[in-house]
Amino acid sequence: MDGYLPQVFQRFGEDYPSVMEAFGALGERLHEAGPLTDRERRLAKLGTAIGRESEGGVRSHARKALAEGIEPEAIRQVAVLAISTAGYPAAMAAYGWIGEVLSAEA
Amino acid sequence: MDGYLPQVFQRFGEDYPSVMEAFGALGERLHEAGPLTDRERRLAKLGTAIGRESEGGVRSHARKALAEGIEPEAIRQVAVLAISTAGYPAAMAAYGWIGEVLSAEA
Amino acid sequence: MDGYLPQVFQRFGEDYPSVMEAFGALGERLHEAGPLTDRERRLAKLGTAIGRESEGGVRSHARKALAEGIEPEAIRQVAVLAISTAGYPAAMAAYGWIGEVLSAEA
Amino acid sequence: MDGYLPQVFQRFGEDYPSVMEAFGALGERLHEAGPLTDRERRLAKLGTAIGRESEGGVRSHARKALAEGIEPEAIRQVAVLAISTAGYPAAMAAYGWIGEVLSAEA
Amino acid sequence: MDGYLPQVFQRFGEDYPSVMEAFGALGERLHEAGPLTDRERRLAKLGTAIGRESEGGVRSHARKALAEGIEPEAIRQVAVLAISTAGYPAAMAAYGWIGEVLSAEA
Amino acid sequence: MDGYLPQVFQRFGEDYPSVMEAFGALGERLHEAGPLTDRERRLAKLGTAIGRESEGGVRSHARKALAEGIEPEAIRQVAVLAISTAGYPAAMAAYGWIGEVLSAEA
Repeated sequence: MDGYLPQVFQRFGEDYPSVMEAFGALGERLHEAGPLTDRERRLAKLGTAIGRESEGGVRSHARKALAEGIEPEAIRQVAVLAISTAGYPAAMAAYGWIGEVLSAEA
Repeated sequence: MDGYLPQVFQRFGEDYPSVMEAFGALGERLHEAGPLTDRERRLAKLGTAIGRESEGGVRSHARKALAEGIEPEAIRQVAVLAISTAGYPAAMAAYGWIGEVLSAEA
Repeated sequence: MDGYLPQVFQRFGEDYPSVMEAFGALGERLHEAGPLTDRERRLAKLGTAIGRESEGGVRSHARKALAEGIEPEAIRQVAVLAISTAGYPAAMAAYGWIGEVLSAEA
Repeated sequence: MDGYLPQVFQRFGEDYPSVMEAFGALGERLHEAGPLTDRERRLAKLGTAIGRESEGGVRSHARKALAEGIEPEAIRQVAVLAISTAGYPAAMAAYGWIGEVLSAEA
Repeated sequence: MDGYLPQVFQRFGEDYPSVMEAFGALGERLHEAGPLTDRERRLAKLGTAIGRESEGGVRSHARKALAEGIEPEAIRQVAVLAISTAGYPAAMAAYGWIGEVLSAEA
Repeated sequence: MDGYLPQVFQRFGEDYPSVMEAFGALGERLHEAGPLTDRERRLAKLGTAIGRESEGGVRSHARKALAEGIEPEAIRQVAVLAISTAGYPAAMAAYGWIGEVLSAEA
């Protein structure tokens, strides 16, 4: 399933550098657009990716969350909480993707 | 659009009390299933509802977030951050729903 | 929200009669493509529309289900069951739309 | 794609037993919440998972449907019917997942 | 349903000018990122919004398409084509939203 | 992920020939339902499949677009444009699927 591998993100960045530069600048503006802390922004964005059932988004935000020092149990809980908001199958899909990221990075 | 009004939630609870009791018990288990704080859980669930583009979910979590003391600018930022994760139209829909909730409760 | 009103379906049929004819022929082939009874097909299609969170689809299948003699409580239960499969907000949206259809036709 | 394997469901159940207990209790309440038969509930829930395009949900409900004695042709027809309600690609994805389940269990 | 009104887009732009500036710059980079003509880009983006079932996106792209001189029948056909790709209910929702935009601007 | 392989489409056609015949007839009516050119219809349908995040739809329309002589850079741009309409993860998923199709057919 190459569509979700980090290589796709990397290749896209190499193929369209000016798009990625503009996308990065947008991301900075979004981060400055309110009082949320780094940790809170990451948890909210991980939640959004889970609600969106975006495998690439869930894996990417889980990886960044871990790199930023968020505890594995906190990352997993965002998926667990989605049982009531997004349904059991969507929550389990996210739980599985997060579990793979946590294993790979451990 | 009655489908999204709090009355639907209320009527459902009256029509199916045993379902709501079981759903409430599940919610408590989800809350205990990790180290996230009340505020972090709310932000993550709001993010999930935004990613899901669930009008009812976004309105409900925004209302509860406000009642729990989360600043309006923090609630709005969860929608703003969704521009990159869920696309501009989904983020704007959430931004509009949140704006209505914040106006109604102000 | 005209996008969901029966008028849109009707106007579409008047504007594109050959499309609707072909769509109707396809529907007949789908109905013959297996052993499900009329009632079972309706329940399955209502479930699909609920999972799709399609307001137009949910309202349309609920209306047809009622006209075909399916009990209101059975129609509502398809939405209730979706709490575990599609999440509480999606189930409640469907429950609200179905409730409106049942009230209007009662 | 571990996110969809039964192992994920199993591991989740081991990691969060109290969540699964509450989720099971909720499921029982949903089943009692109306007049649908076992077979009708399964078909409706399979339809919802197909509308949701949930690979895990489709596989899980197809597997259970087969175990409960629902004919393979009836299970497949729920996916076939989705052509008109959810579009050809969504129906074909479900058709493929169901085909794999039916082959594996045959 | 204020979440979809142009006022939301406008208010967002006033509240978060630096986000909108960065979003506009990103849009320009996307437009330069390939050989599609203005007309082709608009049709492709309208198609994406329809596939996404984004009311705000569909209305916004339909309005811009009309302003850019794309014929009403061409705009409508993007929704009609979605019957096979996204299902009848999603196509009809888009058809309804587009019809309202075309009536309002006529 | 057999659910997305061309084999599924082929097997479905063999299993349900009368459904496929009716589906083909519907497709012809959709094509005649407006002034869009072959190229424009393909770009719009690819956009819809991307917005729908339908792996099977994206791969299928990308393959047909290439066979019809649409330039690889134009096909890729439909995914790139989706960054603003459907969000970065959805656009990247489509970009990855399209990249695989273009490599396989090159």
